[in-house]
Formats: sequence, C-alpha cells, structure tokens
Amino acid sequence: MRKFKAGVIGIGFIGVAHVEALRRIGNIEVVAIVNPNDAAEKAKMLCVPKWFDDYREMLDTVDLDVVHICTPNHTHYEIAMYALQKGIHVVCEKPFTTTVKEAQELVAIAKEKGLINAVNFHNRFNPMIYQLKKMIQNEELGEVFSIHGGYVQDWLLYDTDYNWRINSEESGKTRAVADIGSHWMDTVENVTGLKIVEVFAEFTTYHKTRKKLLRPIETFKRSQAASADYEEVPIDTEDIAFLLFRFNNGAKGNATISQMCAGRKNKISLFISGSKQSAEWDSENLNELFLGRRDGYNQIIVKDPSIVHEGTKTIISYPGGHVEGFPDTFKQCFAQIYQSIEGNRSLRDFAIFEDGLRGMILCEKIMESVQIGQWVKVE
Amino acid sequence: MRKFKAGVIGIGFIGVAHVEALRRIGNIEVVAIVNPNDAAEKAKMLCVPKWFDDYREMLDTVDLDVVHICTPNHTHYEIAMYALQKGIHVVCEKPFTTTVKEAQELVAIAKEKGLINAVNFHNRFNPMIYQLKKMIQNEELGEVFSIHGGYVQDWLLYDTDYNWRINSEESGKTRAVADIGSHWMDTVENVTGLKIVEVFAEFTTYHKTRKKLLRPIETFKRSQAASADYEEVPIDTEDIAFLLFRFNNGAKGNATISQMCAGRKNKISLFISGSKQSAEWDSENLNELFLGRRDGYNQIIVKDPSIVHEGTKTIISYPGGHVEGFPDTFKQCFAQIYQSIEGNRSLRDFAIFEDGLRGMILCEKIMESVQIGQWVKVE
Amino acid sequence: MRKFKAGVIGIGFIGVAHVEALRRIGNIEVVAIVNPNDAAEKAKMLCVPKWFDDYREMLDTVDLDVVHICTPNHTHYEIAMYALQKGIHVVCEKPFTTTVKEAQELVAIAKEKGLINAVNFHNRFNPMIYQLKKMIQNEELGEVFSIHGGYVQDWLLYDTDYNWRINSEESGKTRAVADIGSHWMDTVENVTGLKIVEVFAEFTTYHKTRKKLLRPIETFKRSQAASADYEEVPIDTEDIAFLLFRFNNGAKGNATISQMCAGRKNKISLFISGSKQSAEWDSENLNELFLGRRDGYNQIIVKDPSIVHEGTKTIISYPGGHVEGFPDTFKQCFAQIYQSIEGNRSLRDFAIFEDGLRGMILCEKIMESVQIGQWVKVE
Amino acid sequence: MRKFKAGVIGIGFIGVAHVEALRRIGNIEVVAIVNPNDAAEKAKMLCVPKWFDDYREMLDTVDLDVVHICTPNHTHYEIAMYALQKGIHVVCEKPFTTTVKEAQELVAIAKEKGLINAVNFHNRFNPMIYQLKKMIQNEELGEVFSIHGGYVQDWLLYDTDYNWRINSEESGKTRAVADIGSHWMDTVENVTGLKIVEVFAEFTTYHKTRKKLLRPIETFKRSQAASADYEEVPIDTEDIAFLLFRFNNGAKGNATISQMCAGRKNKISLFISGSKQSAEWDSENLNELFLGRRDGYNQIIVKDPSIVHEGTKTIISYPGGHVEGFPDTFKQCFAQIYQSIEGNRSLRDFAIFEDGLRGMILCEKIMESVQIGQWVKVE
Repeated sequence: MRKFKAGVIGIGFIGVAHVEALRRIGNIEVVAIVNPNDAAEKAKMLCVPKWFDDYREMLDTVDLDVVHICTPNHTHYEIAMYALQKGIHVVCEKPFTTTVKEAQELVAIAKEKGLINAVNFHNRFNPMIYQLKKMIQNEELGEVFSIHGGYVQDWLLYDTDYNWRINSEESGKTRAVADIGSHWMDTVENVTGLKIVEVFAEFTTYHKTRKKLLRPIETFKRSQAASADYEEVPIDTEDIAFLLFRFNNGAKGNATISQMCAGRKNKISLFISGSKQSAEWDSENLNELFLGRRDGYNQIIVKDPSIVHEGTKTIISYPGGHVEGFPDTFKQCFAQIYQSIEGNRSLRDFAIFEDGLRGMILCEKIMESVQIGQWVKVE
Repeated sequence: MRKFKAGVIGIGFIGVAHVEALRRIGNIEVVAIVNPNDAAEKAKMLCVPKWFDDYREMLDTVDLDVVHICTPNHTHYEIAMYALQKGIHVVCEKPFTTTVKEAQELVAIAKEKGLINAVNFHNRFNPMIYQLKKMIQNEELGEVFSIHGGYVQDWLLYDTDYNWRINSEESGKTRAVADIGSHWMDTVENVTGLKIVEVFAEFTTYHKTRKKLLRPIETFKRSQAASADYEEVPIDTEDIAFLLFRFNNGAKGNATISQMCAGRKNKISLFISGSKQSAEWDSENLNELFLGRRDGYNQIIVKDPSIVHEGTKTIISYPGGHVEGFPDTFKQCFAQIYQSIEGNRSLRDFAIFEDGLRGMILCEKIMESVQIGQWVKVE
Repeated sequence: MRKFKAGVIGIGFIGVAHVEALRRIGNIEVVAIVNPNDAAEKAKMLCVPKWFDDYREMLDTVDLDVVHICTPNHTHYEIAMYALQKGIHVVCEKPFTTTVKEAQELVAIAKEKGLINAVNFHNRFNPMIYQLKKMIQNEELGEVFSIHGGYVQDWLLYDTDYNWRINSEESGKTRAVADIGSHWMDTVENVTGLKIVEVFAEFTTYHKTRKKLLRPIETFKRSQAASADYEEVPIDTEDIAFLLFRFNNGAKGNATISQMCAGRKNKISLFISGSKQSAEWDSENLNELFLGRRDGYNQIIVKDPSIVHEGTKTIISYPGGHVEGFPDTFKQCFAQIYQSIEGNRSLRDFAIFEDGLRGMILCEKIMESVQIGQWVKVE
Repeated sequence: MRKFKAGVIGIGFIGVAHVEALRRIGNIEVVAIVNPNDAAEKAKMLCVPKWFDDYREMLDTVDLDVVHICTPNHTHYEIAMYALQKGIHVVCEKPFTTTVKEAQELVAIAKEKGLINAVNFHNRFNPMIYQLKKMIQNEELGEVFSIHGGYVQDWLLYDTDYNWRINSEESGKTRAVADIGSHWMDTVENVTGLKIVEVFAEFTTYHKTRKKLLRPIETFKRSQAASADYEEVPIDTEDIAFLLFRFNNGAKGNATISQMCAGRKNKISLFISGSKQSAEWDSENLNELFLGRRDGYNQIIVKDPSIVHEGTKTIISYPGGHVEGFPDTFKQCFAQIYQSIEGNRSLRDFAIFEDGLRGMILCEKIMESVQIGQWVKVE
C-alpha cells in the first residue's frame, strides 16, 4: 500500500478532526501543519513533526502528496490555488469558497492539473446515508416526489455568540445556508441523484447585532461576561433559512436551516417520500434508517454490515450495534479520497470541486431568491 | 349539572368519534343521528334512539340543544345555517366551509343569534399542546422567532386511493391544506398567540388522475382490485403542500403538509424556537413535550397532572404514564364547549366559527400564493 | 342490541375510568354507584342517577345486570360473593383478592352460578399486545425462549407517599407484585400462551416507614407538608421486586417491578425473544410494536387497522396514527365482556376469575421464594 | 510529549480496533502485530512495519513500551505473564482470564513489576457513562437503591452461529456472562461506586448443540450453508443469563444478558434508581443520558462539552451533536492508559488487572449460584 504525506492547514476543531481521521487510515502520515500564531504549540499537542505560521512556507518546503484546507472560507481559494499550482492534491473544507467565480477557477485549474480535488462533504459517508443512496439507485423507494428536512444547531442562539462564520467577509454572503445548508443540499442531491432546478428562500437574521468578545473567553462562560468585554457588531448574514426546492424530476421539497434551535446541537434530518416507500434519517440517531410503508410494517435498518447492501459494507468498520459516529465519516471519506489518489477510481462517492462549485451556485441562487421574493432557476 | 340533548349529522369515522366522546362526558345524551341511506343501521350500531336520512327532518322534529356537523365540507354551510336559524348551538367539523364567504356568513349569523359556535380543532386539547400554550403565555420560551413542522399522512399514497376529500367540489379548492394544514395552522396560532401575516406556498399534485371505485371495496384490498372496478378521475387538489409563513411579531416558519408520506399514518409535528428555549411536540408521541436548551439539560415534560401547569390539569383525566390519545382530545374539547353552553365562559380554549373563518382565509391566501409564486399578505 | 344496566362500586380514579369506558360502548347505562361518604357528590359529578354508601344497598335495591368492583383489594371477596349470590355478573379490578383461598371460593361460586366473571386485566386489550398474541399463535416469532421486562412507576418514591395499597391488611401481603406485577405476569402468560412453572424473587422495601397524612393534602403538595401533618407508619410490603421465571416450555425470563423509579410514571415493558424473531413493546409508546430480526431489517408495526391481523382489527376503533391509549383498553375490554354476557362467546380474550386466581397463586409463590431464597414451583 | 511503541497481539475485529484507536492518539506508534497464519497479510493491510506468528518472538525481539492482548481468553494469562516478566506494560482485552487463579497471579506479578496493567473495559469511557459516574459521586441521584438493565446481542441466535467464544476451553466456563455480562457488571460497579456482594443467576443454553463450520463461510451466508459444511458440537456455555444482585449499600438489581436477542445487535442498558432522581442510558443511543424525576420534568443530557461536568469534558473530543461512538471509547481509554504510563496518575478511570480479577470472581460466583440455585456471597 502506498504511503502518503499530508499537511493540514488550519488547526481549529475541524483541522484536528482531519489529523485524527488521517491517522486512523494507516498509510498516511501527517507531516506538517499550519496555524497562525500557535503552530508550534498545536504541532506539539498533535505530535506532528513540522509546523508553520504561513501555508506558503509549508507548501514551498515540505514534500507533500496532499494538503487539507481547514481554514476560514475566504482563504480557501488562494490556498487551494497555490497548492494545485504546485501539483499537490487538495482536500478542502466546505463551504468551498465565498464566491461562484472563485469556485469556477478552482474547478478549472484542478481539471487542468489532473489532481485529486475533494470537498469534505463527509455526511455522504454516514453508512445509513450511503445505504439510502444505494436503495434509491435500486428503485427500492420507487419514484421520489417529496423531500423534507433540515439542519439545525444552537451554537449561535444568543447575541453573545460570535465567530468568524458570522462575518460575511470571512464566511461569504450567506452563513447558515453556506455552512450547514450546503451539507443538506449536497446530501440530498447525492442520495437521491436528483438535481435542484429552482429555489425559493426566506431568511431570518434575528440578532441584528451581536456582541464580539474583545478577548477570548471560553464558550460556556460567555453569557456571564461583562458588557465591557464585548463590542457590538452589526450582522449581515442569516441565522435561519427556510428553503423550498424544485427538483429536475418534478419532486419538491423544503429544508429548515437554523443555527438558533435551542437544544438541538447539530441535527441533520431528511425524509424522502417515494411512490413505494419512504425513508427517514437523522444525524442524532445516525446508525438507523427508517423505512415507511403504507401497506406493510415500517422498518428500521441498523448499521450492521451483515444486513446492508454490498456497497454500504465498504464504509462500515465495526459490527452491528457498535455505533460509528461523526469522526468515522471523516475516516471513510478520506480513505476513499486517498484510494482515489492511489489510482483506484472505482469508488467515487466523495465530493469533488465541482460539487463544491455546485454548492456555491445554490447559495448564490438562494440569496437571489431572498432578494426578489420569487423562485429562482438554477441552470 | 345540566343535561344536554345532542344530534350528530354524518356518521363516518369522525361522526362516530363525536358520539363516543359526547357519551364519556356524562351529561350529554346523543338522541339522534343523520346519515344518508343507512341511518337506521348506524343508529342501531351506536344505540342511538332516533335516526334520519335528512338533517332537516332531525332539526325540525327533535328537540336538540346542540348539533354536531360531521359531513363533507361542502354541506357544512347549509346545515350550520339551518341549525343556527332554529336556535341550535353548533359544533362543526373542520375545514369549516369551502369558501371564505360562507364562513363569513356563518360567523355573522352565529353572532346575531348569540349561539355557541364551535369548530372541532381538537388538537388544541392535547394536554402537552395546552401546556405549551401556557408556557409561551408565561414567556418560558422567551420570544418566539421560528416555527417549523408539518402534518403528514399516507392514506392517499396510491392512485387507487380515492375519497370525497379529493374532489374540489365536495372538499373545496385546497385539499391537504384545508383538511390537515388547517389543523397545523390553528394549532400554531393558538399555541403561540401569534398571527400569520404572510404566506408563500408550493403544491404538488403527484397523481394527476386517481382511480375511483365504481363500487365499495375495503380500503386495504383496494390495491388488489381489478382495473374494471375503477374509473379514472382527473385530480385538481394538492397531495402535498410546502408552506412558508411570516408571523406578526417577525417570526417565520414553515410546514410540510402531505397525504402521501408512506409509513406516517397521521403525524402532526411542531418545533418552536424561542430566545430562551425551544419546544417540540409530535402527535405520534403525544404525551411528551420536549424542551430544548442551549446551556442546560434538555427536558421532557410527560403528561402527568402533578407536574404541569394548573390550567393543563383541567384537560387531563388520568394519572401520569396512562396515555391519553386522539379520542381524549375530542372528549376534552366537547366538555369545554358544553360547559360554555351551560354558561361557564371562563375557559374559552376551543375554536369558534371565527377561527374556522380564519382557516378559510388562510387557505385562500395560500392558493393565491401558489398561483402567483409570491408572498401573499393575510390582512 | 341488548341494553345493560351496570353499577360501579368504588369511585376512585379507577372507578371513574370504568364509568366513562362503559358509556362509550353505547348499550350500557351506569345506573348506580357506591362510594363511602361522598356518594352523592360523586354521582352528581358523574351524572349517575342513583348512589349509595353501602354496596349491599345498591345490590339489594337496584336491578343490575353487571357490577364493577373498584374498591380496595381486601373488599373484593365479600362484594363479589354478595353480587354473585344475587345472580349479578361481576367485573372485578385486580389484584383479584388478597388470598388464594378467597380467589378459589369466588371461582367456584361463579362457575356454580354460571355468571360472567371478569378481572380487569385491561392490558390484554392494547391493540399491539393483541397483535403480538396473534403473531405468537401463528408462530411468527418461532419458539419463545426468553422474556424480559417489567413494570415501573414512581408514585411511591418518597416516604411521604402513602396510600391504602401500602398497607398489607387492605392490599394483601405483596404490594408491587400484586398491584402491577400481576398485570405483567397476566400479560406475558396471555400473550405467549406459556405458563410460569417456577418463580424466584427478591424484594426491596426501601422505606421501612412511611409518613401517612393525618388529613388529606393534594399529592403534589405533600413533600412540602410539615412533619406535624404526618404519622410514621411501619411498612411491610415491597417497594420493588426483582422476579425470575421458568416457563412450561423451558423458556426463562425476568421482570423488574418497581413503584419507586423516578420519572417513569407507569411503564410496562416486555421483550420476547423467539427463535425466528423477537418482539418488544412498552406502554409509553403503546401504539407501536417492535420486531427484531437477525438477518433482515427490524420492523415497527403501528396500530393501523389496515396492516394488522384480522383479530386485532376488532379492538381498534380509530385509523392508523390516531393514538389509542389507556382508557381505550378499558373500553375494548368491557365491550368484549358485555358481548360475552349477551351470549357471544366467540371472543374470550378478557381475563376471568380463574386468571385472577392464577395471579393470586403467583403472588403467593413469589412471597414464598423471597422467604426461602430459592426457586418455588407453581403447580 | 513522550512517544510510545506498541505491539498488538491478535488481529481480529478487536485487535484492529486497538490499532486504529492507538493511532488516533498521536504519540503512539504501532510497530508490530502478531497473528497466527496471516500476520504478514494483516500487517500489510494495517500498514504495520513488523509482524510475527508467535507473540514470544515479537516480545523477545521488538523494543515495545506496551503490548495489547486481543487474543482468545484462554491465552491472556500466558501472554500477559510473558510480557510482564519482560517489563512491558500490558493492556488486556476482557474477559481478563479464564480462571480466578490466573487472574490473581497476573495481579500479583503486575504489582511486583510496577507496570501499568489495564483491562479494556472501554465502556467506562462513554462520555455519558462518565457523566453519570460524576453525578452519582456528587450525590445528584441521592442514594442508589435499585439498578436494572442488561446487555443483549443477537450474533449467536441460530445454531449455525459458532465462534471460539462458545467453547468453554477457549472462553472459560461462562460465556455470555464473561463476554458481555462482565462489561455490564464493571460498568455498574464503576459508575455507582457500589460493590456486588451477593449474586443469584439462572442460565439458558438454548442450543444444546451448534453447527461448527468445517471451513470458513462469510457470516451472513452461514444460514444458507449445506449441512455437510458443518459438524455438530455439544455446547456447555450459556446463551442467556438472568442475573440478580445485592450491593454493599443494600441496593439490589438485575441484568438480562443474552446473545440471542434477534434485532438487538449490541445493546447495553442500565437504569439506576436513586432517592432524588433516576438515570437511564443505553449504548444504542449512547450520546444521551436520561434523568427521571418524580416532581419535575425529566431531563436529557446530550454529549456536549459545554453542559457536562468538568471531568466529562476530558473524554469528549467533538462538539455537541457530533456523535462519538464505539471506537471513540477505545481512543479515550487508551489515551488515559498511556498518560498513566507517562506518569500522569491523576486520572485513573480505566480498569486495571484487579478489576479484571473482580470480573473473574463474579463469573465464578455466578456459576456457583446457577449450580446450587441459591444466592452466593462474593468476596
């Protein structure tokens, strides 16, 4: 098995998740990381041999096969461009970029260079989501005519919650839709094989201003911070989005996207209605897939390699009843990306830059719909 | 306690539910029923002393305090009008009428006559829904800014499913929205105290035609019926509706309304996001109310008279853990309506004709939105 | 349809449930009630025409078809005996009596008189329990070899919780086992068709003394009551019982019976393992039946008359998704008892005095096992 | 941070889980594995540089800090003894040994050598289990008086299911109790701080013989195999165990242990009743902890580092709503073991050889109880 050298840029919560997931796979060494200010400290914590403040320095000096981009959205473009120009394969976090134009350029350059270009829509690698995709391909649900669900979190409930994602300059013009709505749309298009052809949207920015900390305070202590610790910042990105969709086969659907749903920490859900049966899945109960039937008994498929489709088995590592969760989707996603780099193109379930571009286009059209209050076509 | 004499018109599934619920209350005698063709047989089955084919005959000849109208929608207007003119209190099934104009006239005449006029939005009498209403009144959720959910069923999944509700002449121009969406909207407005001020909607009529039986066959055998048993009928009412709402306080929301969700027999759900906490309820787990919190533990309120608000206790008949279900909401709803007739006006939780009119207006505006593809104001 | 006159003795929570359930059926009039001290008040509240302080007076003076005994356990024997001697059919609450001897005598006299003699093990009439029974009869689970579950409540958690059931003189020597364990054992034997042939048990009486109120205080205020309001009473009945069973086919099982499980208001659960598949049901989610499978997908049967066994349909009154709960089991149970009185003996699902006697024998053997710390045979 | 070299002996499902978990931690290199027959192939698959057929060869020739023993139970003793004699720290899979005597000797030698000696009771590292332990230490549940639950699986449902664990020579005299019951007992004693002082047990060996494959066939195809593929083997270990417990504080409890529960792939559950509140957890919904209350609302704690106890945070790697599952417990468990080797003894949540010995003693006493049909004292 070929050995790979990987570098990870951006060591926040997600960057750490990348490092850990890569190590599980076995043939990948994380040889370097990049993080502003505290790179040495982070490298020590993660036992990574090399560290840099500037990504260019790493890409210029370290012999890498693959680079993982885990930085704020507005930097993805320049980093990916720099890496691709150097002939390094790229795995980029989502949302892919902050504009459609950036995304188009990256798609073009990646194609030109013939490099692996992946976007980490890791939810595709939830075994039950994968199973659902296979079932729909086999027409086990019949014709899909309705899809509803959403993605809800609560980490931005209070006006004392602040993060770079809230700032449109770092995050892009949409926030909730780009950050989590993009996961939902990618998952739905990927699972059903359908394409969104028209969108309608309604946004809520509940907190017109938010209180940005003048110095760091642990998240859970923020609500106790004194007002002198904050500056009041005007907000121009949405807290909540209500989306409607028309799909290319005539199916329709909706999604509730919210970062202010108290008590729901990180819940993706989807209910897909087909003419034979329906399917429901949610990420808080991620090892089960519900199948609804009109005439027979409803069913629950559990994540058990002995009962799922052949394909699904390939992304299950543990026996039935042994819960695989969020970090496991990263492992499965990266394992397939690196197999692809190694030359095995038979499995191509992971998202590529074109899928990232697709997400950016959908975000743009959704914004347009909000502005004009009408359905907007997605070409 | 005053004794009442009630008559029930229309002895389908819902009419039977009315008869049974009325009897539980104790001081109400169901003295007569009306049903076309098989009134005697139905009366015998239900042990009701008098029966009629024609509602006029019952209203003309039997001394009734209250009449319950459980017939197809397009007949509500004339029956209610006839009863009110005779000075009989009216409890009407939903949807209230088939047009706004009919509804307005009934509101006017009921007011003029000073009679009790109720619409059976019985979901208001789910104890946990009632509890949620009290909690919101007490500002326990803080400011409500987002409401999502829906009402899904599967009884019209196949094109061999046919019923008078499908026919716009009997049912009105909207079907799913009027039949079940109206429940959702009434519940949400009632629970939150908010008013819907704008609507946007998208409809799906998946089956362009349906197969209407030429002679009756048991529901569960219909899919086996031969094609000669059917006539093909064009369909002009929606199977599925995706609704968006703007509320008078700036809150927004959506609802998925479907009669074609395989495996979900009859599920109403709502998730209400407030600035302090959120609440979630669904009718398949109707004795629990979920409270979501950002900083503390989430909570589950169970239907137990010893832990709920004082008001909620009044509509709970059994101790904690003893599930009260669908028929119990009818009992509680009617008990309060009859107490109101008796003169006790302190509790006015049940829906009146004005609430029925409200439902009709909402349906009309939703239709209008579908036609123009834009948000429509509800005055 | 024949009309019946019923009398109800004991108007606590359960007596009221009997009155209401009887009225739903249609051909049964509750003509009289008996309650000590406040019979008139209770009769007025329930709209029952006649009332008595003493059951003998009612049985002597009112022409009744059936009497329902809803009084404390230690009075069942004398009341049932009195009624049977007068030729009145008897429906008795559980536990049937306080001793095996009393139960045997009642079985004998009922048989001699040829009267309907029922014990209200209403859980048999949960539609999903009924469905499970039919499935086991059809060998859909294969051979049953293991049964586990229990019945837990929390109404006796604190030492300030007191009730006549705690007192062995009124309740019998066992408390939790007789009061709720008897339901579990009856349900299991009825559903599986198996017989318990040996028992082993372990009891906990956590509160050695309890505080009995010297005057009534509302339940939910008791914990705030001052100590002067109470007298300290020694307790000789169990709060919690851990039961083991051996069945006549070699199957084994256990049950956890507790009246001190904080947060579980009234939960019966059973998990039945068969050689083909398993089944699980619990009363807090009573409209669903889980089927577990080794090689295929697990299944959920919902209470929907269109998908269950023919027999099950007879005890379902409402369509799928319309939850039927605790009071509905009373209705279905009594409907069948009265049909049996009317002469229809085809359905005999309800429990009779012999089943009540069976429960008393099991309680006695369980007590014996606790005393000797060994398995005890149930002949 | 110190770097460690680890070797893993036995590369079945669990050995692979060890390798992967060790790599996630960052400062641990898996330098060698041992597996009979196919060591080279396994090493290649896992990208481990060295491999051996015989564990002695690895321990003799490779410079290891720690060895992980993931082989069948009957080999644990000799391997652990060999490693300890060489001064290598040992992490051993459960059940620890096959006899109490072996376990005692290993405890003694480990103590004498002053080496880290761990048993992989990884369930202690479920964040919600850890939270529960902290809550009980803080007396948030009050006095614990009742504990019920169990551990159920279905992988041995059919008589065509065969595995070395079934054979008492490889597995030890008890099977279900040793293999999974030991997890339950360790979890309960660890979480509550209580000690089991008496046991009572009842066993079922449903399949008196099982069909052992004469050559390997994939699990899910076994039921289709022809009878010629099998030899009939008599079975002397239990499929199912029903356990009763008395604890040192007077609490009592039970557990249902089964490897034949169709549809339940791997479910550990526990319900702990305290005088203030109760707690329930199960491994199929492992990121939630239910708290039951008598007077207030029940609660659900979700695995979210911002709302749990300080200690619990140390074993959570991802934010709220990002499910951590089975493999994550291995990671957390091993991370703490290696920190302990490094000298950080402040956290000692993992199980040591004495805990493994405790498990063996409990198994032995449980066997004794089955044989004599009476309660048996432990210690």
